[in-house]
Amino acid sequence: MAEESTTGRDDEQVVNPWEVTAKDGGKIDYDKLIEKFGCQRLEESLVQRVERLTGRPAHVFLRRGVFFAHRDFNEILDVYERGEKFFLYTGRGPSSEALHLGHLVPFMFTKYLQDAFKVPLVIQLTDDEKCMWKNLTVEESKRLARENAKDIIACGFDITRTFIFSDFNYVGGAFYENMVKVAKCVTFNKVVGIFGFTNEDHIGKISFPTVQAVPSFPSSFPHLFSGNDNLRCLIPCAIDQDPYFRMTRDVAPRIGYQKPALIESSFFPALQGETGKMSASDPNSAIYVTDSSKDIKNKVNRYAFSGGQDSIENHRKYGANLEVDIPVKYLSFFLEDDAKLDHIKKEYGAGRMLTGEVKKCLIEVLSEMVERHCKARALVTDEVVDAFMAVRPLPYMFS
Amino acid sequence: MAEESTTGRDDEQVVNPWEVTAKDGGKIDYDKLIEKFGCQRLEESLVQRVERLTGRPAHVFLRRGVFFAHRDFNEILDVYERGEKFFLYTGRGPSSEALHLGHLVPFMFTKYLQDAFKVPLVIQLTDDEKCMWKNLTVEESKRLARENAKDIIACGFDITRTFIFSDFNYVGGAFYENMVKVAKCVTFNKVVGIFGFTNEDHIGKISFPTVQAVPSFPSSFPHLFSGNDNLRCLIPCAIDQDPYFRMTRDVAPRIGYQKPALIESSFFPALQGETGKMSASDPNSAIYVTDSSKDIKNKVNRYAFSGGQDSIENHRKYGANLEVDIPVKYLSFFLEDDAKLDHIKKEYGAGRMLTGEVKKCLIEVLSEMVERHCKARALVTDEVVDAFMAVRPLPYMFS
Repeated sequence: MAEESTTGRDDEQVVNPWEVTAKDGGKIDYDKLIEKFGCQRLEESLVQRVERLTGRPAHVFLRRGVFFAHRDFNEILDVYERGEKFFLYTGRGPSSEALHLGHLVPFMFTKYLQDAFKVPLVIQLTDDEKCMWKNLTVEESKRLARENAKDIIACGFDITRTFIFSDFNYVGGAFYENMVKVAKCVTFNKVVGIFGFTNEDHIGKISFPTVQAVPSFPSSFPHLFSGNDNLRCLIPCAIDQDPYFRMTRDVAPRIGYQKPALIESSFFPALQGETGKMSASDPNSAIYVTDSSKDIKNKVNRYAFSGGQDSIENHRKYGANLEVDIPVKYLSFFLEDDAKLDHIKKEYGAGRMLTGEVKKCLIEVLSEMVERHCKARALVTDEVVDAFMAVRPLPYMFS
Repeated sequence: MAEESTTGRDDEQVVNPWEVTAKDGGKIDYDKLIEKFGCQRLEESLVQRVERLTGRPAHVFLRRGVFFAHRDFNEILDVYERGEKFFLYTGRGPSSEALHLGHLVPFMFTKYLQDAFKVPLVIQLTDDEKCMWKNLTVEESKRLARENAKDIIACGFDITRTFIFSDFNYVGGAFYENMVKVAKCVTFNKVVGIFGFTNEDHIGKISFPTVQAVPSFPSSFPHLFSGNDNLRCLIPCAIDQDPYFRMTRDVAPRIGYQKPALIESSFFPALQGETGKMSASDPNSAIYVTDSSKDIKNKVNRYAFSGGQDSIENHRKYGANLEVDIPVKYLSFFLEDDAKLDHIKKEYGAGRMLTGEVKKCLIEVLSEMVERHCKARALVTDEVVDAFMAVRPLPYMFS
């Protein structure tokens, strides 16, 4: 049975790797997405199993359901429990100079997974994709890939366990061989069904899914995993990337490879509200890692959609609508203190706390986080980037 | 204006990179092909210009019209006359263990061009293509590429001016960057128009034309042509490859590159007659470079289609029909002595010479040629193959 169902496009919402739009004025319906994509909900019992196996509290993104869906994540935990190994694969399409907070979500979570499970990680920078979709030059795409690599490295990845590569630098050899193996199994009709391509799309787009598929297979990295062809792969990503890996999982057994497992997040919402994912192209919809404290204060105060009532009287009477409130949403991503978050939700929801106070708390949390990121990024020299991107064995990657 | 016209498929004959079939029982109509493809006939005056510029007699394949069509070959000669340089690009899809005589034709001619113009040459072995079209494994395709490289090297190429590469080994880096640049300019509809692909074709096929396109551009070979981005490229090939290079010439100016020039041959006919090109899949339709003298004698005597009459009386009376006679056709490819060939055609055409005598002459010519090839191939060790395929600068390639 083929795994893929549809392009995620229906009358109500559109979710694919290039477009995330909720039904008019509404929120993304994640239950519907799970059903349409055919992935599994990440149940509380799995989170508890992660805590038991790693001997540490689950990341807030797990505890609070930011990562809410998966494919075969339980099998990865089986592997780990048996004392065997797996590897992590995540990536980024380098389409902008600076990352926003939504871009950091998968990397913060991946760093947690790397630390908790002590496993190697490959990070793909799809500069070829952005060159083709965004009409950037090859040179500009490659430059952005390196700039983005600095922000990714600043998240704190372990250089002894992490290989970062850009497609323009790394496609070739064993990686290209796997691209051809995958391509042979996927017809034009199939990518039309999965990704919604049309006859007017260029042939670079049509074959690109092979490039994003093959880092799922250890044999694409002979310098890392030579002779370890059955090593399982776990992919932490936002759920809009699911189509690539549905395709990959469909193809894998046909070419004698293991299916990659997935752990999938919801989208980090725009300041204006939860109708899609934060957009790099509207600077006022997002907080960037390059924003100053003043920018952050200004953006949160001006643009962060509030669930508070329109007058203090009504607010005291009815309380804030936490379901649509962006400051609370952002705090649930980045405020690690569960007790403090619960307190804010309780007081704010009951109308005893005002939007201004919640925003003030959020501004503090974000400012501190962005400041910490900037300091870490300032230490990432070109030499550090080169070191992470060097095609090299990682002899201590499992220790 | 787009250069490409049609897929070369009409009611009468089919000519594309994967199929060459004449109209029932007839011969390929090359005039029609030139008209449909939109290339130019290679006029006698151009052949004379080649002789004048190189100071040596034109190769028999030029003198006798085996290479009969071109695109901008005159511009290559202009370049050469101005004392500037160009490079040659040819290739082979390694789908079989042993080459037949038809496979040798472009390589024999390319060797002549390399010797006459003293220019560098890149030879692409499209092992990825054969893996995708013939359903060979990656490993088998790579093995065949190396085996075929030995036969190609045995044609006598100059190692100081020749770089041979297989796609599985060489795709990547600057080469892959050019693939992406080309892919961005070619829609699915376009490859359907040029190559006749369908929605059921896999995405590897659909994007493969980019792989065959980019060796036309010097920037795909930074170890050879770095800083020489305007170097012109001349591609000697059989005319069934024209669709790839129509596409390439269409794209080239849009990405700031020079169009490759082409010099195109007719097909080497099967022993059974001139309705298509020699087929590697029917062993009795072709003479292989691995055939023994006995095989050659047997195949020529048994299968070579004769234009002689059905009785000696009729033959003496009407003479042979040279238009359909395969022994004469083969001799016109491989018997270098113009006077001897003319004598045979005259005597045989007048009925004074019998088919058996012509076949005897052909057997001698082919046996000597295949024997010479085998001796040369025996000297091509794996080390020699590695040396030709090493990614290396060629400092004396223009001297």
